[in-house]
Amino acid sequence: MDVTDIGRSPYQVFLGIKLRRADTEGVEIFLPFRQEFLREAESDWLHGGIVSALIDIAGNYAVEAKVGEGVATVDMRVDYLRPSRGDLTATATVVKLGKTTALSDVCVRDLKGDLVAVGRAMYAVPRKK
Amino acid sequence: MDVTDIGRSPYQVFLGIKLRRADTEGVEIFLPFRQEFLREAESDWLHGGIVSALIDIAGNYAVEAKVGEGVATVDMRVDYLRPSRGDLTATATVVKLGKTTALSDVCVRDLKGDLVAVGRAMYAVPRKK
Amino acid sequence: MDVTDIGRSPYQVFLGIKLRRADTEGVEIFLPFRQEFLREAESDWLHGGIVSALIDIAGNYAVEAKVGEGVATVDMRVDYLRPSRGDLTATATVVKLGKTTALSDVCVRDLKGDLVAVGRAMYAVPRKK
Amino acid sequence: MDVTDIGRSPYQVFLGIKLRRADTEGVEIFLPFRQEFLREAESDWLHGGIVSALIDIAGNYAVEAKVGEGVATVDMRVDYLRPSRGDLTATATVVKLGKTTALSDVCVRDLKGDLVAVGRAMYAVPRKK
Repeated sequence: MDVTDIGRSPYQVFLGIKLRRADTEGVEIFLPFRQEFLREAESDWLHGGIVSALIDIAGNYAVEAKVGEGVATVDMRVDYLRPSRGDLTATATVVKLGKTTALSDVCVRDLKGDLVAVGRAMYAVPRKK
Repeated sequence: MDVTDIGRSPYQVFLGIKLRRADTEGVEIFLPFRQEFLREAESDWLHGGIVSALIDIAGNYAVEAKVGEGVATVDMRVDYLRPSRGDLTATATVVKLGKTTALSDVCVRDLKGDLVAVGRAMYAVPRKK
Repeated sequence: MDVTDIGRSPYQVFLGIKLRRADTEGVEIFLPFRQEFLREAESDWLHGGIVSALIDIAGNYAVEAKVGEGVATVDMRVDYLRPSRGDLTATATVVKLGKTTALSDVCVRDLKGDLVAVGRAMYAVPRKK
Repeated sequence: MDVTDIGRSPYQVFLGIKLRRADTEGVEIFLPFRQEFLREAESDWLHGGIVSALIDIAGNYAVEAKVGEGVATVDMRVDYLRPSRGDLTATATVVKLGKTTALSDVCVRDLKGDLVAVGRAMYAVPRKK
């Protein structure tokens, strides 16, 4: 998994995500602000759909960094804790890596370091041959 | 709530969502395919972040159609049932409208009518003055 | 799956659940009131832990009625819609039956027919040999 | 919140939970094994409904220890990570305390210290007068 992988996903190109760190301890992803992310034109709040996509992607990369291949999201819970503004950073860790599934926890913070959302997602892991 | 509202949200403009129906029974939203929604350049699978955004938005409009004003997503569960491709349609209903919160159920289908994802989201409802 | 199965589970014996219907369309489970289910001694509200157990069990039986063997709960979301009192009935259906997982939706109603809680749970399904 | 509170809940008396620690940092609850908690008579696995009840209760006490009065569970996600056996310990912290809701994270471990389940639950907090 490297920047090339991220560059191959059209939606991730739109988001403009930057993979800052990815190892077996977890990943850190940076999402620089774009005008298109706004919830309303007159407000500086980001749309919840941007935050949930960031959570899904961060959890995905955390699991992939551990299993060494692509995985698919099975389900996800997102909790929005406060309005999110500006650039965001998501950190994700793997809570449990099982034979066929993996669970990941994700924290999303703004530039002030405030926790704006948390997510927990399950991924389907390919069986070892 | 009308098409003007949708047009005022930069992220919803990017998504290109069309509100097909909105009444107290629920809402139906249409999401026409865009190249930028793809998960990978070589595949026709939509990114999960598009599907979860659609769920969030559909549930939001279902609650707003009932309470008559803007609401904010508190938390959301998304279950991805199969790969989603092409244009999508989301239907959302309100399971419970309480004094301060509302719960919505959302089904996402592709053009063949296959259920590709389901979501359940909670929204904070402004208290009546 | 029959009443014998239910009778072999010590916790289900404590709960006293009755399997009223189980077919490929779904299941219906009846949970007669017990004093031990109360949340507080001075109130007639049932404890949330009783409602969530009922949801887990109903979803489990709905999946088992479709796959014909035992399954294990992977994750679950429960939404408590209003205080629950007295005897409860849970109906569960299978939203999606995949090769390794199944998703079930559960509705819990009281004797008046009011929806007191809804649940959505994922179960691990044994692979076909 | 003290042992008296726990003793006043009939379901918590059945469970036999012990509140080991409760402060603004979080709570720790001990659940000693009972034969009635078993999923099947021939197995030493605890029923999932016991684990989800423990999660709900631990998150509840964590929020109550912070707000100083009773709260009600709104929704909950539970992830079962491995079969749980014997005595269990749940630790809960408050992720976010808002004006009307609070979010809590719960970890459940067995006597070996293995993480057997995690939960995330939202509670309705009474408004300050």
